[in-house]
Amino acid sequence: MTSARPVRSPTPASEVRRTSDAGCDLLIHSAAQLLTLAGGPQRGNELGRLGMIEDGALAMTDGRVIAVGSTGELRRHHRARREIDARGGVVLPGFVDPHTHVVWMGDRAAEFELRLRGASYMEIMAAGGGIASTVRLTRLASIEALMLEARPRLWRMLTHGTTTAEAKTGYGLETGAELRLLEAVLRLDGEGPLELAPTLLGAHAVPPEFSGDTQGYVDLVCSQMLPAARSHMQSSRPDRPLPFVDVFCEQGAFDLAQSRQILATARRLGFPLKIHADEFAGLGGTALAVELGAVSADHLVHTPPTDIAALGRSTTVAVALPCTPFGLAEHEFTPAQTLLEAGAILALATDLNPGTAWCESMQFVIALACRALRLSPAQAIAAATINAAAAIGRQDRIGSLEVGKQADVLVLDAPDFRHLGYRFGTNLVSLVVKNGQVVHPVWPEG
Amino acid sequence: MTSARPVRSPTPASEVRRTSDAGCDLLIHSAAQLLTLAGGPQRGNELGRLGMIEDGALAMTDGRVIAVGSTGELRRHHRARREIDARGGVVLPGFVDPHTHVVWMGDRAAEFELRLRGASYMEIMAAGGGIASTVRLTRLASIEALMLEARPRLWRMLTHGTTTAEAKTGYGLETGAELRLLEAVLRLDGEGPLELAPTLLGAHAVPPEFSGDTQGYVDLVCSQMLPAARSHMQSSRPDRPLPFVDVFCEQGAFDLAQSRQILATARRLGFPLKIHADEFAGLGGTALAVELGAVSADHLVHTPPTDIAALGRSTTVAVALPCTPFGLAEHEFTPAQTLLEAGAILALATDLNPGTAWCESMQFVIALACRALRLSPAQAIAAATINAAAAIGRQDRIGSLEVGKQADVLVLDAPDFRHLGYRFGTNLVSLVVKNGQVVHPVWPEG
Repeated sequence: MTSARPVRSPTPASEVRRTSDAGCDLLIHSAAQLLTLAGGPQRGNELGRLGMIEDGALAMTDGRVIAVGSTGELRRHHRARREIDARGGVVLPGFVDPHTHVVWMGDRAAEFELRLRGASYMEIMAAGGGIASTVRLTRLASIEALMLEARPRLWRMLTHGTTTAEAKTGYGLETGAELRLLEAVLRLDGEGPLELAPTLLGAHAVPPEFSGDTQGYVDLVCSQMLPAARSHMQSSRPDRPLPFVDVFCEQGAFDLAQSRQILATARRLGFPLKIHADEFAGLGGTALAVELGAVSADHLVHTPPTDIAALGRSTTVAVALPCTPFGLAEHEFTPAQTLLEAGAILALATDLNPGTAWCESMQFVIALACRALRLSPAQAIAAATINAAAAIGRQDRIGSLEVGKQADVLVLDAPDFRHLGYRFGTNLVSLVVKNGQVVHPVWPEG
Repeated sequence: MTSARPVRSPTPASEVRRTSDAGCDLLIHSAAQLLTLAGGPQRGNELGRLGMIEDGALAMTDGRVIAVGSTGELRRHHRARREIDARGGVVLPGFVDPHTHVVWMGDRAAEFELRLRGASYMEIMAAGGGIASTVRLTRLASIEALMLEARPRLWRMLTHGTTTAEAKTGYGLETGAELRLLEAVLRLDGEGPLELAPTLLGAHAVPPEFSGDTQGYVDLVCSQMLPAARSHMQSSRPDRPLPFVDVFCEQGAFDLAQSRQILATARRLGFPLKIHADEFAGLGGTALAVELGAVSADHLVHTPPTDIAALGRSTTVAVALPCTPFGLAEHEFTPAQTLLEAGAILALATDLNPGTAWCESMQFVIALACRALRLSPAQAIAAATINAAAAIGRQDRIGSLEVGKQADVLVLDAPDFRHLGYRFGTNLVSLVVKNGQVVHPVWPEG
């Protein structure tokens, strides 16, 4: 999609059932359950407030929601140019996937087999496999080749209900290749229909030419890569906000001081921040995220209690990525209940990537989170919509169905929201609407 | 599908690359990897023999495989009425799902939420939930209503690559309702394109009217239900083999002596046998299955070592159902490695059912088995095709791509077989052929 449009403030939940006698472009009606997710991001044990309307309907015009209410009420008051019967299914906001590495070259199926035989992720990485093998292929690719490889994955995300996703660079690990990845994300966002929020993850791993000199690479990221990315954005897309800057704060990658150096430099340059923290070891990345006002801290499997407490008091969103331990056949997951007790704003994401979690489906993330994180279906749905929107700073525009917000809407072929979670391994989404347009399935008349 | 047709013996693997100058109905070519799974069921650590042909092709006529070999060879020697380019994808036999409860009424989404809060499966069942709640609705349903509910699930199975599935009764628990379920399975099989192998599971649970009198229900199954099912088959479908008879041998269901009574009676009446054994407790059901020559023993999470040893020396197929512990958010899975060490013929199935595992996708079973059972992708694929065919006694007709066998074929949108397992939560199947006909997607010209 194109850059952010000005946003009217969404109305509070109490005014959601607004009606008018105006016409509208599209009316979706007869939802057994319409989940509005109204009222903004959901902190701590508030998580799971669906804002459900039974026999619900939704009117849209010019890509925005103009009314939410009962089927009877909306059909009385809106002359719709097109009506869609949800046939007793569930209607909800499009999923937001706030942590993906969707643009890469090649695959690592062989490495998956090795891992099943016992090699660990960090061992494979230390042996020059892992990220390094993806980097070798990605560096050789043109922007067009990167886009060609990513498109089927983006399409799979969309058909599984993701209408907005974050997308990281991080398989280039040199300024030119990182800028090509960033440019690929920006152009794919421009193509649509899936909307992408770009993140510069130059500090995803230490590239082979800096082996043994992590600090040298950190200095290069700070002195060259970040300024170059800023210049690129300012010259090519002056109206667009800067992408996020992210760092992999982990043993074998970047330590706390190096992570701080990168994120503090990025902040000075005006970038909003994210961090990969505590996936395998608790190095203090989460507290750093809170201190620097990062928009999100992601992974959080081994986060120390004091860092969890700090996160719970902050506006930094906690992003759990359960597909990653699942993908790695590991058994330790983000302690979601502890994070909620601490008051954190919890979101879910796929972590879609070629090494540990090749999964495009937020529906599977929800099913897994119910089991591995012990979230209720309602909690997991809120974490995959309004809270996920907050994890990319777009809670005022997407993640809920409220008057004035972007009309990103799903219809499920299921009569109850709990079928998300209850059922697994398949796709329950029967219709995807993006910016008020039906984008899947593409009907003959559409 | 209609009843079993006479089968020519498949040729041994060494003769698979047969060529002829004959025409053929359909030729699929340019598979980066064509997996034949030739050579029959794979016992113990033999599991994982894919019979791979690179740049492979497959010729089919009258619903049968007539040649398997390289693309160059087959295109030279076969004038095909229709050719399909697999475009560098993987071609393999259709999945066989040898354990499903696909025909039921209603859903149990609310119970899923309860379970997440800590109620166990056996506790929910003891409280009159679980199977009993499905039974209440299923007893009220006509054969047509049962078929209507099952069709979308069967279609989802097919589009995820399952071309043959076993389908159990067991939500009737009285003779009339069980026969309606059996008839629904038989008619759905007749409709196709998914082929169904029926199983009578009258002894799935003790019905409420026999609460406290399990033995009374067992006697009814033996004296009334089994003979009635036999008569129904003989009068309505005299040329068709009898369905399997299955029993849930478990604490809270049927004990070992009761399971023996039912299965021994069924055997005397000429039914082939299956058993649900050792899902929650090891009661001796697996040894019973071996003793009575059952075609399969299923679940096997808590099977005692002596029973595993007996199974490993038998022709009874061991069916692992990893979606069930996953669905229940439990952590104990079938000890697949121990079963393989013992020499067992290991198969995989979904256990598709409304209580513990609503999952239609054998691809997800494979992905889960790689992680939870530590199978390699090749092992999991063999367990989901040729060994799964053996688990329903159809290894001579389906489960591999060999000359003379039924042309049930998948094309994957993936360049390497290990993408099954490596990737999860989505559908990699781009084409499904059943009996030599393209059944998904249904193309305009098809």
